[in-house]
Amino acid sequence: MNVTVRGLTRHYRTVAFDAARNSVSLIEQRLLPHEFKIVSTRDFRQTALAIKDMVVRGAGAIGATAAYGLAQGARAFRGRNLKKFGSNVDTVFQTLEAARPTAVDLVNALNQVRHAMRQGETVEEQQALALAAAEEFANEDVRHCQDIGRHGAELIRSGMNILTHCNAGWLAFVDVGSATGPMYAAQTQGKKFHVYCDETRPRSQGATLTAWELAQQSVSHHIIADNAAGHLMQRGKIDLVIVGSDRTLGRTGEVANKIGTYTKAVLAHRHKIPFYVAIPLSTIDWNLKSGFDIPIEERHESEVLGAWGVVTDLSSRAARPPSARAYVRVANPTSEALNPGFDVTPAELITGIITPVGIFRPRELWKRRRNLGVTRDGD
Amino acid sequence: MNVTVRGLTRHYRTVAFDAARNSVSLIEQRLLPHEFKIVSTRDFRQTALAIKDMVVRGAGAIGATAAYGLAQGARAFRGRNLKKFGSNVDTVFQTLEAARPTAVDLVNALNQVRHAMRQGETVEEQQALALAAAEEFANEDVRHCQDIGRHGAELIRSGMNILTHCNAGWLAFVDVGSATGPMYAAQTQGKKFHVYCDETRPRSQGATLTAWELAQQSVSHHIIADNAAGHLMQRGKIDLVIVGSDRTLGRTGEVANKIGTYTKAVLAHRHKIPFYVAIPLSTIDWNLKSGFDIPIEERHESEVLGAWGVVTDLSSRAARPPSARAYVRVANPTSEALNPGFDVTPAELITGIITPVGIFRPRELWKRRRNLGVTRDGD
Repeated sequence: MNVTVRGLTRHYRTVAFDAARNSVSLIEQRLLPHEFKIVSTRDFRQTALAIKDMVVRGAGAIGATAAYGLAQGARAFRGRNLKKFGSNVDTVFQTLEAARPTAVDLVNALNQVRHAMRQGETVEEQQALALAAAEEFANEDVRHCQDIGRHGAELIRSGMNILTHCNAGWLAFVDVGSATGPMYAAQTQGKKFHVYCDETRPRSQGATLTAWELAQQSVSHHIIADNAAGHLMQRGKIDLVIVGSDRTLGRTGEVANKIGTYTKAVLAHRHKIPFYVAIPLSTIDWNLKSGFDIPIEERHESEVLGAWGVVTDLSSRAARPPSARAYVRVANPTSEALNPGFDVTPAELITGIITPVGIFRPRELWKRRRNLGVTRDGD
Repeated sequence: MNVTVRGLTRHYRTVAFDAARNSVSLIEQRLLPHEFKIVSTRDFRQTALAIKDMVVRGAGAIGATAAYGLAQGARAFRGRNLKKFGSNVDTVFQTLEAARPTAVDLVNALNQVRHAMRQGETVEEQQALALAAAEEFANEDVRHCQDIGRHGAELIRSGMNILTHCNAGWLAFVDVGSATGPMYAAQTQGKKFHVYCDETRPRSQGATLTAWELAQQSVSHHIIADNAAGHLMQRGKIDLVIVGSDRTLGRTGEVANKIGTYTKAVLAHRHKIPFYVAIPLSTIDWNLKSGFDIPIEERHESEVLGAWGVVTDLSSRAARPPSARAYVRVANPTSEALNPGFDVTPAELITGIITPVGIFRPRELWKRRRNLGVTRDGD
């Protein structure tokens, strides 16, 4: 999407590949919203680290980064020995795969690239196929988000107040975004609406990333504490909820997404407010039979015990430079925290799943799996 | 309750009065949990400011502070002219009353002191009666919390996991606390249990105050993001919820409490987890007929857009001095926030109201109003 830096508006993708330098270019999301910066990773280990350390986050963006990372690792190999090359690719694959355990998109992306590579008969051919497959993964991610936007925009009417949680925006994908896709499409159609962004503790991706995105695209919005959504629903101030998903179970319609999503679904259900989940096909897990089998990442307690931001003097309006970015410990110094990163929302609380090929009830996914891209077994 | 400072354990009340200096002594709660400090207010305007600026917060503590503030203002009057004295007391009353619009305890406390003063025939008598009434308000607050603790402890069994929201602990009262009263009583009875403290954004009173309190009394606990409670309930990790209340409607059983309370009640209801509200009698509002009539304070957006804490270097374990306390702007600099301070939980979601005279179903309150201290009309 467009980003305006010092008055200049330019189009950026969240993730891109520099073939000449064999490097992956990423928007350094940990500096946002205070600073906009592009970083490049030199090798696949740095790329894996960028995923692990959340320079890049979000289903599609992680997938594309991993795909590029696999191509990057494959392309760095010198020699013609296919066996050595294969073993090298295995290492790259496993390193990238281990970077984030809950993200199914990452595994799908890696499988897609490795699958394409198998068509090549030489190291060189496989290297070229890896990059082509990674580029195709990224381009497909963009097309899918545009398609999600087209279908989802039909749910948005002028005057609506829309709640979203975390960041399933273009920063979480290669471009456009899943949960924000319908908003950007509706905006293009001239519809006027307002968005409430849950701040999304403990990492505050709503307050930082989604709010930044919406501000860049001039979408009317307010940030709210995660605690405030129930009150707003009770007072009739939310008409529609759209969130993303890190993993959606094709067999059950259950949705794993950022911690707190389940709470919003329970609240929306009580208030009979439509609750939609916007997903690209690559985040559907067709294997798992129960949401309880999804591994829930336990993240570091420092996220809950404090906050990252720019040190600011509230009594003056002067902005500090982003270099003053700091972590503050908020919580009692002698207490510990629990920090589950995700939760699972059952199908019964979800009005519909917005996919690139249309909107489905969550329990319909399995029946429609051929439309939803299931063509191979076991992937 | 007890506080350990540099190895020395001493008993403190949250609010106390120094008659010789005519000053109110308060634990400076905005410095907690990083620094423990007692501050004194010189006159009723400073006392009102301490309430407004949340040096002191929580139903009972605000009530006692206002009661002492009214006595303080009355006692500062020089002269014998009853009419001038009365007009002076009116100013003190109105200044204190305006400090926090949602806190019914504040108005009750002021009314209780003014009611007692009317028994005096001279300025001097009324001044003495004001202080006696304020002291009685504070002592009654402590007794009430002890009684809440005794009744509520019957709900707690060893092995239980208890969720609480915000701070309805001893820091919110003169001592003991409402929601924490049952926990401290159960601990005294030798029961072993675990507490999950919602961090309670945007002001984080759970992570700062409740966690600090529980740590001081050696109660086993974890801090969690507000977003995590639903997940923990879904996984069977919460057996009981106890929260406080800023205002409970005697006619309907509706409970106004810190933003996010309603959400926890909705979640508990879905998971069939008992949801209790612990309240002293002074926070019951017998007049309002609907929760929608409770004024909901809209607080400053900076609370949502950032966080207060102690600047900390996560890579080293060295603690910074509390003087390094700072506000960090977390959110996108070009976005705004909405910040409702309270929400209203309907009676149907509340298992019981724990009062000093027993546990009642929320809709029973009105029928039991004579047991619950309604003796006068219109107060």
